[in-house]
Amino acid sequence: MAVVLGPNRYGKAETRVVRVAREGEVHHLKDCTVSIALSGAMEAVHLAGDNAAVLPTDSQKNTVYAFAREHGIGEIEEFALLLARHFVDSQQAVHHARVAIDEHAWVRRGPHSFVRDGTEVRTCLVHHDRDGTSSVVSGLRDLVLLNSTGSEFHGFATDRYTTLAPATDRVLATAVTAGWRHAGPGTGSSADSYASSYADSYTGARECLLEAFAGTHSLSLQQTLYAMGRRVLERRPELCEVRLALPNRHHFLVDLAPFGLDNPGEVYYAADRPYGLIEGTVLDDAAPPAGPAWD
Amino acid sequence: MAVVLGPNRYGKAETRVVRVAREGEVHHLKDCTVSIALSGAMEAVHLAGDNAAVLPTDSQKNTVYAFAREHGIGEIEEFALLLARHFVDSQQAVHHARVAIDEHAWVRRGPHSFVRDGTEVRTCLVHHDRDGTSSVVSGLRDLVLLNSTGSEFHGFATDRYTTLAPATDRVLATAVTAGWRHAGPGTGSSADSYASSYADSYTGARECLLEAFAGTHSLSLQQTLYAMGRRVLERRPELCEVRLALPNRHHFLVDLAPFGLDNPGEVYYAADRPYGLIEGTVLDDAAPPAGPAWD
Amino acid sequence: MAVVLGPNRYGKAETRVVRVAREGEVHHLKDCTVSIALSGAMEAVHLAGDNAAVLPTDSQKNTVYAFAREHGIGEIEEFALLLARHFVDSQQAVHHARVAIDEHAWVRRGPHSFVRDGTEVRTCLVHHDRDGTSSVVSGLRDLVLLNSTGSEFHGFATDRYTTLAPATDRVLATAVTAGWRHAGPGTGSSADSYASSYADSYTGARECLLEAFAGTHSLSLQQTLYAMGRRVLERRPELCEVRLALPNRHHFLVDLAPFGLDNPGEVYYAADRPYGLIEGTVLDDAAPPAGPAWD
Amino acid sequence: MAVVLGPNRYGKAETRVVRVAREGEVHHLKDCTVSIALSGAMEAVHLAGDNAAVLPTDSQKNTVYAFAREHGIGEIEEFALLLARHFVDSQQAVHHARVAIDEHAWVRRGPHSFVRDGTEVRTCLVHHDRDGTSSVVSGLRDLVLLNSTGSEFHGFATDRYTTLAPATDRVLATAVTAGWRHAGPGTGSSADSYASSYADSYTGARECLLEAFAGTHSLSLQQTLYAMGRRVLERRPELCEVRLALPNRHHFLVDLAPFGLDNPGEVYYAADRPYGLIEGTVLDDAAPPAGPAWD
Repeated sequence: MAVVLGPNRYGKAETRVVRVAREGEVHHLKDCTVSIALSGAMEAVHLAGDNAAVLPTDSQKNTVYAFAREHGIGEIEEFALLLARHFVDSQQAVHHARVAIDEHAWVRRGPHSFVRDGTEVRTCLVHHDRDGTSSVVSGLRDLVLLNSTGSEFHGFATDRYTTLAPATDRVLATAVTAGWRHAGPGTGSSADSYASSYADSYTGARECLLEAFAGTHSLSLQQTLYAMGRRVLERRPELCEVRLALPNRHHFLVDLAPFGLDNPGEVYYAADRPYGLIEGTVLDDAAPPAGPAWD
Repeated sequence: MAVVLGPNRYGKAETRVVRVAREGEVHHLKDCTVSIALSGAMEAVHLAGDNAAVLPTDSQKNTVYAFAREHGIGEIEEFALLLARHFVDSQQAVHHARVAIDEHAWVRRGPHSFVRDGTEVRTCLVHHDRDGTSSVVSGLRDLVLLNSTGSEFHGFATDRYTTLAPATDRVLATAVTAGWRHAGPGTGSSADSYASSYADSYTGARECLLEAFAGTHSLSLQQTLYAMGRRVLERRPELCEVRLALPNRHHFLVDLAPFGLDNPGEVYYAADRPYGLIEGTVLDDAAPPAGPAWD
Repeated sequence: MAVVLGPNRYGKAETRVVRVAREGEVHHLKDCTVSIALSGAMEAVHLAGDNAAVLPTDSQKNTVYAFAREHGIGEIEEFALLLARHFVDSQQAVHHARVAIDEHAWVRRGPHSFVRDGTEVRTCLVHHDRDGTSSVVSGLRDLVLLNSTGSEFHGFATDRYTTLAPATDRVLATAVTAGWRHAGPGTGSSADSYASSYADSYTGARECLLEAFAGTHSLSLQQTLYAMGRRVLERRPELCEVRLALPNRHHFLVDLAPFGLDNPGEVYYAADRPYGLIEGTVLDDAAPPAGPAWD
Repeated sequence: MAVVLGPNRYGKAETRVVRVAREGEVHHLKDCTVSIALSGAMEAVHLAGDNAAVLPTDSQKNTVYAFAREHGIGEIEEFALLLARHFVDSQQAVHHARVAIDEHAWVRRGPHSFVRDGTEVRTCLVHHDRDGTSSVVSGLRDLVLLNSTGSEFHGFATDRYTTLAPATDRVLATAVTAGWRHAGPGTGSSADSYASSYADSYTGARECLLEAFAGTHSLSLQQTLYAMGRRVLERRPELCEVRLALPNRHHFLVDLAPFGLDNPGEVYYAADRPYGLIEGTVLDDAAPPAGPAWD
């Protein structure tokens, strides 16, 4: 046996940057949390504490702030690509960069006054390698949805431990975590023209998720998951793969019989734990290999 | 010295009830978390473990669900009053009831499909005593606001430990926790006619908070707090006292000079901790005594 | 009607200070979160945005760090009193100071190496007024306890909504939040000699809570609460009042009968919500008035 | 383009089970959170809502409770393997099972009285496939460590955005998330004799992490990470791979010069965000392929 170093990465996580763009009286706001992870020729630092290849995470944080000033923050995917390429291009020891950005939404209340909008977070995850390839996954998390009818669950497998009654009308509720992989950019050159569409892509994909959740008469949450992913791929040709994680936030019909009351689908107890967790991938069968896109 | 029992209360906390009201195809949703605390002749249970006066917290939970079925859930203040009066009226040992309800907002996406709306929570805190008096405080929490200009802070006291520079243009951001006390209902009889206005009152008071925050050129967060409370009282005659807790979520202008960049109010670092915390009460000088209303 | 300013306070919340005391190779660690709230002649800032009376919360934060260097951090109650008196004594407009400190525990692993110890947090809440009076409440929170037997609950009141079965052997689990008020210091002069006993007092009171929880055959959580408070007061003459908040973290015996299994007190489901919440005060009938001690 | 279903899995997450083992007066406690994910022939449910292959997540929850009664809960790895094999062996459509268990520690205070011990959580992640192979990863998270000296960081790469000063004496603090992969069991037959060593393995590996953290004079957190992983592999021949995620919880020396004070490594500000995040794998170069072990 010999002990060796395996895959590794390091960087500054959760740098919170708020960018104000001033257009006279009218201000525009971008509120992001940026996490950077770099990897490459990092043996010496692990094995011998030699930091010559290590760009401090503090410098990475500074770069986020400086780039926000120099380039502004447009779509988060563009800003993430800008950062990822910068580290790979400027640091010889850095062979690969991963940049994840969360964007927190604000709604305008006045020319320079804003209200935070919701728990939902727009996300992106970008990789850039020194071989010139990049990958972009966009997404969201904490989009909480509920259908108060139009959901069934029956005909399932049973075993010695099954007590669940079949349901022909149940509440279906979930908090969506979704990511969608862009077919491009594969190479740096086409990236910039491509970039302009991230906003459209986000709005469109999100709308597909909402529509498919609300519009699918559900026989299982798996069926709904697949319908959501399929809708995104069918409507958004720029995307080639969707991954969804859907907790099944159980809403149990309360038994009111002991109190002489019926409960025709009116009063529910929303449980915290345990919960079902349904995870799945829907993809274009011609999608290029994902590589590290989701890591 | 003699050891004695002082003030005490007990009850079921955080019962989550989701109420669906069905109007044919169209469903309506109420999603609430209810916390009950009862007090009264509870010496025997503390001193001797005699539970004869103790209505189980499990029964309190059941009551929430049964009342949701029997009475529906209209405005949370009404539902809280209904519960509070029930426990005081039906249990001889219960002399006083406190009911707090959080309401989680949903936005409609279809006839029976909904999306959770925001981090903001509508709240109420109701007390009812066996002497017939009730108090109602309505409010909200986690309403996150930001002004990207129109805020100054200078002319402050200084001491040996002061290093803060005066600011003539800063970001002002906070997460509002607010409560407003209703002048009525003082007695049970007038309560029901009064009740119909809780929804209006909430919408109106919330709008006052938003307007005053956005519209006040702020010389300090205290000044903004007072303006917010004052606006509510001036516009809503049914309210007699407002309490606000406003964390000052500091947004520090990042020093970009080391990178040869200026930063004219564009790039900020949003800090988590520490934060300023400004708490204050604004009231009508003719307000009746608060009694236990805020406890 | 006239709108007026009511009670108010402001300050820096959650300043995290880590203090290393070096004794040659051997280091000692104090890890605290300090929250300061000042009040006094603050009308002008609320009504007119005049900050002349406002010592910035940033200066308060600086004071925490500077005092940690100048005075070290001994018992948190002493450090809180030092800060509270400083603000009242040095700022004419500050008539009253409230300082709350959380202490996070570390266990030694080497001369200068430490491991965080538990979720439990030691707390204090100190008030100092310009009339010279001070109050000190010490305590803890998130002390999680469980008895797997020795707990019953029966003979309780019942109503139409009661379905709970009497229990003669149940699991009793809680997360203790406790505070104990020191009879002294009433005035500044005696405070310092008194101060040396805070560590003893903490260790002793905490041990009383643990002993009384483990040692009480419980007929209700209220009975256990009272026994815990009583034990503290009987053993610690320096204390005059104990306040406890005990969530009843329900552990439900799982019904295994559908699987042909009995469950003789072996397999439990630990629920998150809802939970019972038992709050109570136990005090020496000769305790001096609490004043703002618990606010 | 054709839309197809990719990798997917489903199951019950975060089933909390508390198991009491009664040995006369003396009770023993196991407190676990179990998450199950099954995968296999699940096309029909995704594409057509046909649930015939879907064992309800409710049945999975029931199985956790029933198995806790029937088999007790010994080492969490054994319980996880028992569950994983059960689902694969008993459900034809389930080709692969993943079971993750968190164990929450309690310290004894009496024959049947316990105190929760720390934030630290013992973890395991088990996979079992219908081809008969299993993998076991054991680990922990939220083990919070701090060295108040013996840590340096200098000689690092610099760029235009670097302002960090070299440090020759800094505080090093982290919250360890670690997993270690067992070389066996590769096949079912040898698993049971192997199982008896999980407790030893856990205690031993944890001690290695603590020792290496405290004992390494650190030139970078990467060096410490590697030393921690290496120590585990060198001492525990039953393990073949260690993965570590170490947030660098920055403790910044407070600048007290404005107050006329020096700060010789005594007063630190502990920041929440951003933080460095160092992730790395240390492995035996003869380790068998990991397969899905870490997924």
